[in-house]
Amino acid sequence: MNPGANRRGDPPASRYDRKIRLVIAYDGLAFHGWQRQSGLQTVQACLEEAVAGITGEPATIYGSGRTDAGVHALGQVAHFVTSRAIPSGNLQKALNDVLPPQVRILSSEEAPLGFHARYAARSKLYRYRILQAEVCLPFAWRYVWHYPLPLDRRRISAAAKSFLGEHDFTSFAASAGANSEPDSASAGSESKSMVRRIISSRVLWSERRKILAYEVEGSGFLHHMVRNMVGTLVEVGRGALQPGDIDRILKARDRKAAGPTAPAQGLCLVRVIY
Amino acid sequence: MNPGANRRGDPPASRYDRKIRLVIAYDGLAFHGWQRQSGLQTVQACLEEAVAGITGEPATIYGSGRTDAGVHALGQVAHFVTSRAIPSGNLQKALNDVLPPQVRILSSEEAPLGFHARYAARSKLYRYRILQAEVCLPFAWRYVWHYPLPLDRRRISAAAKSFLGEHDFTSFAASAGANSEPDSASAGSESKSMVRRIISSRVLWSERRKILAYEVEGSGFLHHMVRNMVGTLVEVGRGALQPGDIDRILKARDRKAAGPTAPAQGLCLVRVIY
Repeated sequence: MNPGANRRGDPPASRYDRKIRLVIAYDGLAFHGWQRQSGLQTVQACLEEAVAGITGEPATIYGSGRTDAGVHALGQVAHFVTSRAIPSGNLQKALNDVLPPQVRILSSEEAPLGFHARYAARSKLYRYRILQAEVCLPFAWRYVWHYPLPLDRRRISAAAKSFLGEHDFTSFAASAGANSEPDSASAGSESKSMVRRIISSRVLWSERRKILAYEVEGSGFLHHMVRNMVGTLVEVGRGALQPGDIDRILKARDRKAAGPTAPAQGLCLVRVIY
Repeated sequence: MNPGANRRGDPPASRYDRKIRLVIAYDGLAFHGWQRQSGLQTVQACLEEAVAGITGEPATIYGSGRTDAGVHALGQVAHFVTSRAIPSGNLQKALNDVLPPQVRILSSEEAPLGFHARYAARSKLYRYRILQAEVCLPFAWRYVWHYPLPLDRRRISAAAKSFLGEHDFTSFAASAGANSEPDSASAGSESKSMVRRIISSRVLWSERRKILAYEVEGSGFLHHMVRNMVGTLVEVGRGALQPGDIDRILKARDRKAAGPTAPAQGLCLVRVIY
């Protein structure tokens, strides 16, 4: 049996195929999200064009998951298959030479043919940044949610703990058909269920920068899930909800029970763990 | 005599006129420079429109000096005259509410009618940032010159000392008619001469961020002067010039004797000293 073949959408690998794994950073406000969309500048389309220009072959880039328009990445992971024998280090440099500065290849290496950026992912770490300063500098506005009103960080920290463990996150998922968003680390049943496992959920504060950062690591995330969690944590921080309300909201399995969706540009996909 | 009148272009002040002093930060890549230009988005035009919208009067904003397209500011200072009795603190908030996020008012206060953002300035502090990392993150490229080749920081520091004191900076000024750029802290003879006084000229290095910062404070700067100084320092750092060559280049009074003009987006007007 061909060792490169799999049941997950990759074309069958020829004897000379190589799988390249990329770690990618991008400015989410410069793109209409990760996923290829006809007529729009997306990260995936931008990468596919760059790879095809270098390898001379049509390229399909498989990401660890989609990110929405406005959501940044410091450590998105993706793979593609090529028959060309370009050294992977040269490939990083060659790609960065042709890509716009809003997207950068942080590393490029050959991966086993069985590697899959989406299905092999064990968890993902996202960071959401809220700027509490009164004025948001012109160099920061693209990367934070500017929220200058008081937030009680101890209440937010307490509420954040309620997300730990396995829960049905229906209340924190984008409503309607958007729930089918396949940003799930493991294949099969989990991607159909609304249950996700949260491994880490914590609040960090920089007094000097007046930035409240919420870091969450999970087995996978539903569409808008982190932004809806943050929107709800802010409701707790400003006193409109109690820290204990998170349990009640999770149990409700109703999007209307949770807080609003926090703006996209505060969110960053920091790392994908394999 | 009317205490608000002066010979420097302000309209005569009425009994109710008040002078407002603003400290402004902006992202230089979002504007076609500071100075008003027909049909182009400039910082000055953007501020004048915002002030006029709030005061209901036509507004002229006087800056401490121009900055070129791409050059950022953390502490540009400007003033305008108004007959309205809007509290200056409210004015900051009102302006930030209507201005785009690429320009922010950091402070707004009433100043003596004799204050003039350009003519009262004693010196200016600029910072130029060179990123030495191999890859420039998508969140940094707007604010640095990405120069990943080796630079000898000790040689650059030695060369930077040669700029201290009073010198004729003809070799470091944009050639042709651009020399008339009135970015001069003191009025009168200095703005016609090419002599400027450099008060501080130093190199800082952040190992963590791989950023070489060049900070220079001077009585005033000719058009492109800091960028030409940086372009020449980089020639010293990469070994194409010797640190001792700076003296020779200054004496030559010839633009062709110095190095190339460093890119605009690495430069930031940090502070204007009064």
